[in-house]
Amino acid sequence: MSLREILKALDQKEISPKEAEEQIAELSIGSVGDLARYDYDREKRSGVPEAIYAERKTVNEVVSIAQKAVNRLGRVLITRVREEHVKPLLALRDEGFEVDYFERGRCFIVKNSNYSPEPTIGKIAIISAGTSDIPVAEEAKVTAEYHGCEVLMVTDVGIAGLHRLFTPLKETIENGVQVIIVCAGMEGALPGVVAGIVTIPVIGVPTSVGHGVAAEGKTALYSMLSSCSPGLAVVNIDSGFNAAVFATLIARNAK
Amino acid sequence: MSLREILKALDQKEISPKEAEEQIAELSIGSVGDLARYDYDREKRSGVPEAIYAERKTVNEVVSIAQKAVNRLGRVLITRVREEHVKPLLALRDEGFEVDYFERGRCFIVKNSNYSPEPTIGKIAIISAGTSDIPVAEEAKVTAEYHGCEVLMVTDVGIAGLHRLFTPLKETIENGVQVIIVCAGMEGALPGVVAGIVTIPVIGVPTSVGHGVAAEGKTALYSMLSSCSPGLAVVNIDSGFNAAVFATLIARNAK
Amino acid sequence: MSLREILKALDQKEISPKEAEEQIAELSIGSVGDLARYDYDREKRSGVPEAIYAERKTVNEVVSIAQKAVNRLGRVLITRVREEHVKPLLALRDEGFEVDYFERGRCFIVKNSNYSPEPTIGKIAIISAGTSDIPVAEEAKVTAEYHGCEVLMVTDVGIAGLHRLFTPLKETIENGVQVIIVCAGMEGALPGVVAGIVTIPVIGVPTSVGHGVAAEGKTALYSMLSSCSPGLAVVNIDSGFNAAVFATLIARNAK
Amino acid sequence: MSLREILKALDQKEISPKEAEEQIAELSIGSVGDLARYDYDREKRSGVPEAIYAERKTVNEVVSIAQKAVNRLGRVLITRVREEHVKPLLALRDEGFEVDYFERGRCFIVKNSNYSPEPTIGKIAIISAGTSDIPVAEEAKVTAEYHGCEVLMVTDVGIAGLHRLFTPLKETIENGVQVIIVCAGMEGALPGVVAGIVTIPVIGVPTSVGHGVAAEGKTALYSMLSSCSPGLAVVNIDSGFNAAVFATLIARNAK
Amino acid sequence: MSLREILKALDQKEISPKEAEEQIAELSIGSVGDLARYDYDREKRSGVPEAIYAERKTVNEVVSIAQKAVNRLGRVLITRVREEHVKPLLALRDEGFEVDYFERGRCFIVKNSNYSPEPTIGKIAIISAGTSDIPVAEEAKVTAEYHGCEVLMVTDVGIAGLHRLFTPLKETIENGVQVIIVCAGMEGALPGVVAGIVTIPVIGVPTSVGHGVAAEGKTALYSMLSSCSPGLAVVNIDSGFNAAVFATLIARNAK
Amino acid sequence: MSLREILKALDQKEISPKEAEEQIAELSIGSVGDLARYDYDREKRSGVPEAIYAERKTVNEVVSIAQKAVNRLGRVLITRVREEHVKPLLALRDEGFEVDYFERGRCFIVKNSNYSPEPTIGKIAIISAGTSDIPVAEEAKVTAEYHGCEVLMVTDVGIAGLHRLFTPLKETIENGVQVIIVCAGMEGALPGVVAGIVTIPVIGVPTSVGHGVAAEGKTALYSMLSSCSPGLAVVNIDSGFNAAVFATLIARNAK
Amino acid sequence: MSLREILKALDQKEISPKEAEEQIAELSIGSVGDLARYDYDREKRSGVPEAIYAERKTVNEVVSIAQKAVNRLGRVLITRVREEHVKPLLALRDEGFEVDYFERGRCFIVKNSNYSPEPTIGKIAIISAGTSDIPVAEEAKVTAEYHGCEVLMVTDVGIAGLHRLFTPLKETIENGVQVIIVCAGMEGALPGVVAGIVTIPVIGVPTSVGHGVAAEGKTALYSMLSSCSPGLAVVNIDSGFNAAVFATLIARNAK
Amino acid sequence: MSLREILKALDQKEISPKEAEEQIAELSIGSVGDLARYDYDREKRSGVPEAIYAERKTVNEVVSIAQKAVNRLGRVLITRVREEHVKPLLALRDEGFEVDYFERGRCFIVKNSNYSPEPTIGKIAIISAGTSDIPVAEEAKVTAEYHGCEVLMVTDVGIAGLHRLFTPLKETIENGVQVIIVCAGMEGALPGVVAGIVTIPVIGVPTSVGHGVAAEGKTALYSMLSSCSPGLAVVNIDSGFNAAVFATLIARNAK
Repeated sequence: MSLREILKALDQKEISPKEAEEQIAELSIGSVGDLARYDYDREKRSGVPEAIYAERKTVNEVVSIAQKAVNRLGRVLITRVREEHVKPLLALRDEGFEVDYFERGRCFIVKNSNYSPEPTIGKIAIISAGTSDIPVAEEAKVTAEYHGCEVLMVTDVGIAGLHRLFTPLKETIENGVQVIIVCAGMEGALPGVVAGIVTIPVIGVPTSVGHGVAAEGKTALYSMLSSCSPGLAVVNIDSGFNAAVFATLIARNAK
Repeated sequence: MSLREILKALDQKEISPKEAEEQIAELSIGSVGDLARYDYDREKRSGVPEAIYAERKTVNEVVSIAQKAVNRLGRVLITRVREEHVKPLLALRDEGFEVDYFERGRCFIVKNSNYSPEPTIGKIAIISAGTSDIPVAEEAKVTAEYHGCEVLMVTDVGIAGLHRLFTPLKETIENGVQVIIVCAGMEGALPGVVAGIVTIPVIGVPTSVGHGVAAEGKTALYSMLSSCSPGLAVVNIDSGFNAAVFATLIARNAK
Repeated sequence: MSLREILKALDQKEISPKEAEEQIAELSIGSVGDLARYDYDREKRSGVPEAIYAERKTVNEVVSIAQKAVNRLGRVLITRVREEHVKPLLALRDEGFEVDYFERGRCFIVKNSNYSPEPTIGKIAIISAGTSDIPVAEEAKVTAEYHGCEVLMVTDVGIAGLHRLFTPLKETIENGVQVIIVCAGMEGALPGVVAGIVTIPVIGVPTSVGHGVAAEGKTALYSMLSSCSPGLAVVNIDSGFNAAVFATLIARNAK
Repeated sequence: MSLREILKALDQKEISPKEAEEQIAELSIGSVGDLARYDYDREKRSGVPEAIYAERKTVNEVVSIAQKAVNRLGRVLITRVREEHVKPLLALRDEGFEVDYFERGRCFIVKNSNYSPEPTIGKIAIISAGTSDIPVAEEAKVTAEYHGCEVLMVTDVGIAGLHRLFTPLKETIENGVQVIIVCAGMEGALPGVVAGIVTIPVIGVPTSVGHGVAAEGKTALYSMLSSCSPGLAVVNIDSGFNAAVFATLIARNAK
Repeated sequence: MSLREILKALDQKEISPKEAEEQIAELSIGSVGDLARYDYDREKRSGVPEAIYAERKTVNEVVSIAQKAVNRLGRVLITRVREEHVKPLLALRDEGFEVDYFERGRCFIVKNSNYSPEPTIGKIAIISAGTSDIPVAEEAKVTAEYHGCEVLMVTDVGIAGLHRLFTPLKETIENGVQVIIVCAGMEGALPGVVAGIVTIPVIGVPTSVGHGVAAEGKTALYSMLSSCSPGLAVVNIDSGFNAAVFATLIARNAK
Repeated sequence: MSLREILKALDQKEISPKEAEEQIAELSIGSVGDLARYDYDREKRSGVPEAIYAERKTVNEVVSIAQKAVNRLGRVLITRVREEHVKPLLALRDEGFEVDYFERGRCFIVKNSNYSPEPTIGKIAIISAGTSDIPVAEEAKVTAEYHGCEVLMVTDVGIAGLHRLFTPLKETIENGVQVIIVCAGMEGALPGVVAGIVTIPVIGVPTSVGHGVAAEGKTALYSMLSSCSPGLAVVNIDSGFNAAVFATLIARNAK
Repeated sequence: MSLREILKALDQKEISPKEAEEQIAELSIGSVGDLARYDYDREKRSGVPEAIYAERKTVNEVVSIAQKAVNRLGRVLITRVREEHVKPLLALRDEGFEVDYFERGRCFIVKNSNYSPEPTIGKIAIISAGTSDIPVAEEAKVTAEYHGCEVLMVTDVGIAGLHRLFTPLKETIENGVQVIIVCAGMEGALPGVVAGIVTIPVIGVPTSVGHGVAAEGKTALYSMLSSCSPGLAVVNIDSGFNAAVFATLIARNAK
Repeated sequence: MSLREILKALDQKEISPKEAEEQIAELSIGSVGDLARYDYDREKRSGVPEAIYAERKTVNEVVSIAQKAVNRLGRVLITRVREEHVKPLLALRDEGFEVDYFERGRCFIVKNSNYSPEPTIGKIAIISAGTSDIPVAEEAKVTAEYHGCEVLMVTDVGIAGLHRLFTPLKETIENGVQVIIVCAGMEGALPGVVAGIVTIPVIGVPTSVGHGVAAEGKTALYSMLSSCSPGLAVVNIDSGFNAAVFATLIARNAK
């Protein structure tokens, strides 16, 4: 019973005020909130699909959470799968699920066979500095497309040769993208350079690519945070997923 | 002479191909780029006002750069002023400038007396966790308003008492803001909590408020980057300015 | 109107279900929660007195928040005061307030002249390793007494001479204390040694006392966290206040 | 011979003062201490069962220490077992021991078959933020139960969706728990949020769950230490064992 | 079409000014730059051979990039190969390539069978402190020779026995080397000592050799950066490749 | 009464066994220990003079502790005095004390006027790398002499010019010193170089001299710990005092 | 007496072999070394002028070392002067010295009035990213000119606006500079960008300009070390002096 | 020819002064040094046996260096062997070598079958805090015995139960040891406690035992460096070898 129904029941004398009070106490805060319009844009939120972060989960956990999620929501995104998750997830095909595996990005999408694709809600670009940054960029791409974004992918645009940057950036802008994700490891300078040129929001994703002082991605992270180009915000190291969700929130509300 | 004029002059035989080539060589890369439509949204960019980062500049540098900027552009924003900058900047009033000083935010806006205000281009909210985070929040507010945003300011919403959060957030959403900046020091949990509730982009600004392991703002920064709420991106510690510029880029393009 | 009153009004047809729904929407989450018995021990909580963290607050802020708090609650604790706060706070005596200043602990207690002392709710011990740790120990002592604890203070019990430890510890236990706070800088070994001997909870407070690799208190903090003695938990560096509040929560519920 | 016996023997002229002096010199400090009432609550301590930290021990060491401990004390807890310890420990069943294996928590309890369970000495709650934090929570649960606590386990209560927090917390309080352990990785905000709501002691256990800047658990640790909620103390990263022992010390002495 | 050709075509009325403008817009920035003499020494640069950083690349990526590079440029250097890259790269011999494998330095050089060696462009010395630093030194040696340097290799010259240093240094200088690369792990003191003796540039390469506080190479790095000998500059940890390229730039321009 | 006296009294029936037991309980652990020959070389220890670490002590604390120590022991060493301690300590001359002030080393020695100097117990050398390391070296020198060592002081022996090292080292050895203290900041290489040459123990004292990555002394510390020369042990940054005490323990027991 | 003279005296029977041996023993290692041609380019070195690092030196030390150096060598460079050094150094003019003070670079050059300038030995460029980096750039400039380099200074070339970079770089190259020093704080990306364009050695000087994660210069340092552009080596944070000496060693030996 | 012989030859006119000068130039610095009595105790040094640090060496390198060392010196110590080194080293028995393998300490001693043991040169104690610290303690023990020390081994003396410490310490002192090595991981408090009790030098060896903030040994290292007990010096993490060599240098020179 929702709050509204409780109130109605009270109004129709089906329950006493004391019973109403007790039943309201039974509601989760969330339910109370819904009624009370503390919903904070819940309808739109329901459009944000469920995702499973597999990194530290056992095979059983990942598979059973995935099954439940698909049964409830029609589809599910699984990120950061480990080697041992792969076969059991692919085996879900035998149970009638549609299963897409993105090896470099370490992601899966599992769907009901009759799940119909989302309408496009915006357009973003994903730029990666080097070949080794592609896994992070791919996680971002899969996530963004899953959330209904059209994605323009531009790879291998290193800072070492800036001339490789200008042409794709120009194309990017001309294509009407509303936000750019830039994945870069090592010195992580590319997002700052891009943000110094374009006038749409740039999201930096530091990657753990590099060796020596760069090897954990903190150099790239700090470099992006310290950038002189103010139109740049940053997510956690290797977080293609977070960047894509954040970009989606911008894109779907953009003109 | 622009590239277009050079080409015209060549077309009309006023100059030779070799002269054209030489004159093009004289152009700055930027000028060439403009013509060649490598302009990357330059018109809009021209709408992004100049700002002076005063922290390590001498008094003379700050004052003279400010004067030049106002003479050229009509107004200028000066951030992170030091004690010794204050009097000389206020003294610019004697030269006919309009000077606004924001003490807690350590900012100045200097204008021509006849400078007319910008039209509003969007609406953002700025939430600060504690009283001590207000200076950073004020820098963000001054910057965002300077760039044409209408700003909803909500202060002292600590994580320690979550009940203080819900009502202002509800109001924020109902007011139609398009992006939220959340400033927090210490454990920096507030931006993640907010991003877990709303469905518009949230920009976290870690502040250097706190003592012990929190004292430099890194705990707040890492906490925000590690947040389980994906709709959150982060800027450098105490960077109210950067957060505001980034928010402006989102807001002005939002529906 | 409380939720109960709204429900009654609905029951008595004074309002419609829709009006009830709207009025409930007007309630703060807290009010809703209260009714619904989400109160989480609020009565006891009201016994936890207000405290002001003055470190980054201006003189005006500290004084005016203090005045308001005393007027509302009868008294207030102010911690981490800076040099410039001292005189204005002492001047509150001229306005009829009772003002206690604890110089080493950098604390103030401001009271209504007619405020009657709290009943004692428990007994704790505070041990400090060296003379230089006393300011942190004093902050803990003032805080704990303010919350109604009887405090046994034992100072200058260094690890360098363990023989100085055994006698005071024995006395501590014989006095029936229910929890021990141990403040230590440098290598921070004392809390682990104490926790290896007693069988009541020990709270370690690392202090920033020391030089070289010890100078920021992290060595003491990590040392305590790594201690082989499991009966030890830790608070932030120099956080006498937090340790005292935590100890109070244990002591007031102890047999 | 104890000190008392030595003194008696001297009194009865069975030995000379010099012999008494020599025999006292043979006593361990502890023995001397016991007599001299430096016992520091030893009786209660004898109630704290032995535990083996297996992480860096060889298979032989773990098995033989376990056997000795059970033979002496009736039972033993083994934490942080490695893959290679598992089979040899399970094989102790063949020798007539009762062996409980907790796979996710990486713990074993080995008992004499006739060991009778401890009486319950208190009630605690263990809350874990995400599925991946469960191993740490389980180590805490096994340890606390082993020490005689009744444990209320609440899993998967993330900060990202605070609405999932309120109902279980309410139940927790209503069930009369005396202390709450909260395990959280990533940004580690949950313990601070819980401590902001309840008025019993909260023990934070940072876990090494997360990636990028969160990956080693330091972000969670620092976040908890920096929390604005003062009723919170912290143990080492992934230290479910320490948290449980500390909680037991509080619970067994609580009203 | 180059810019010059476009201008000629315009001059000869083969195209209109508008068409010229459009075609110039089609040029890459680089092409425009070339004409405009923004070439920045491009001819010399073409002498810097391509290199592939294999660390995070898949086997397929490394092999196919290598094939393309050799077909285009005659040869290619591959650094930081992983175990799994080795066989497939050696198998390129079956396709008619010349393949040199440097196991300790983890490098490959793949060439067309008819590729003729570069002329020598300078002379450098590479000194390594211990046996364990040799892999880094070998990467530097292979890289420098690949770029046309003659290399004098001096190994196992530890700081612990300075007497082992003087004789080889003397020989080095007498041989006319123009720059010295010094590879050292642990305390990383050797480059500073060498730079205190010689008067040619010294490039320090910190290595990740050592254990405890030395284990990641940061101690060696910081030690070199802090050296009192000013004639020393440093590259990233284990970056034999970078040191060799930097040394080549110095050597080829030296008298 | 000592334990021996108690036993005698019991033997002579002056007290009962129960009284003996009670009186033993009154003894401090130390007293018990003494009798029981747990004295651990106490006689020699009594030769180790008292020292006061003034860094964080108030003026009053330092002066009164000093007075008491001199009255009890004849003299006292005070280290790390702050500016504000100097005058009040010098003023002790007016009270009849002998006061020596070592400005660069920030030390005081206060003595009874009739205190006769210690006999020399050993010979040590103190080497400092640069002029800026002298304050630390002087603290070591004052401390070592205070403890009865003859000190050979060698300053300004940088690693940048190793030729400045050999002659003083030779003299040092020829003078029969038994242990060498080497103070060095920046890259901290000197102690390792010295330990690679001599065959007596070398104690490294990292200093906080330097800028950039060297500025806090950690680079020097880590460099010394990572040194390939095994005959080297290290004390905390800037700890001239600790190095001198440690050296004294070696020297006074050396042949 | 030099070694040569000793040998001559021996040859002419003025001294015995034993006397010769003794006198050689009196020589410093350096003197022996000179003769033995272990001179390592000493003649050129004598061209490297003396410099005084004033940071931690007292006023007396700085002034008296300066006087001695000028009297011996004709001139001296003093870097990192503190406020209190300035007046006493300027006062050296009263003693007939020529004194140049470079306020922003915190340097002094003191000369004999009749000291004649050095011949130019090479040409270098110094580029600084922002206005706040100028002090470091000025230290580099003063040092390089002092060592005989002609210096091309280019300031305020931020990465945020790359278009500001190309024109000055072009001029730099056209002017025939042999090595480029690039000073940059914050994200420190500029040196990598420059090294990606030019083909002469680039020396990166990270500066401590910035706030938050950039505030100590480590972000800039790590960023430069991690740069994908291999033609880049790095010196310590804010070390304009070291960069200039290193550049001089390259330039004076360049074609 | 030695310098003395050269001088004699010159004296006897067998060579000219110029030839003498040339021949001296041929001498190694060391040879020159020898004559000039810069020998620095070389004779004693020859008594310090060779050791091989195997960590990063290949199997071939370790085996062949070992063979050469034994052939030259009669025996050799090999530390930090990896799994893959073990079999090939044991196989040296087939070649007639005597081979001792210390599995927990990861050490080998390889000897000529006729190598006669060293005379004992001193007596040291090695104390380890927990079972997991034994490998480091064993490396120290093997090394010290190899260098001729008699070793008293005391294991499992944790800080958690100080009563386990006093008895072994007493025995240690009574046995006449001249220096104590204390190995401890986790919070690393034991060495400071020991140094606070005894009056002979204590060498702390931090170990990498522990988890969470203790896991790399830095907490133990910093804790020891920060200890209030001044009679303590420290070596690198897990450096049983360095501690033993340092202890040997003390012991062999002790009364």
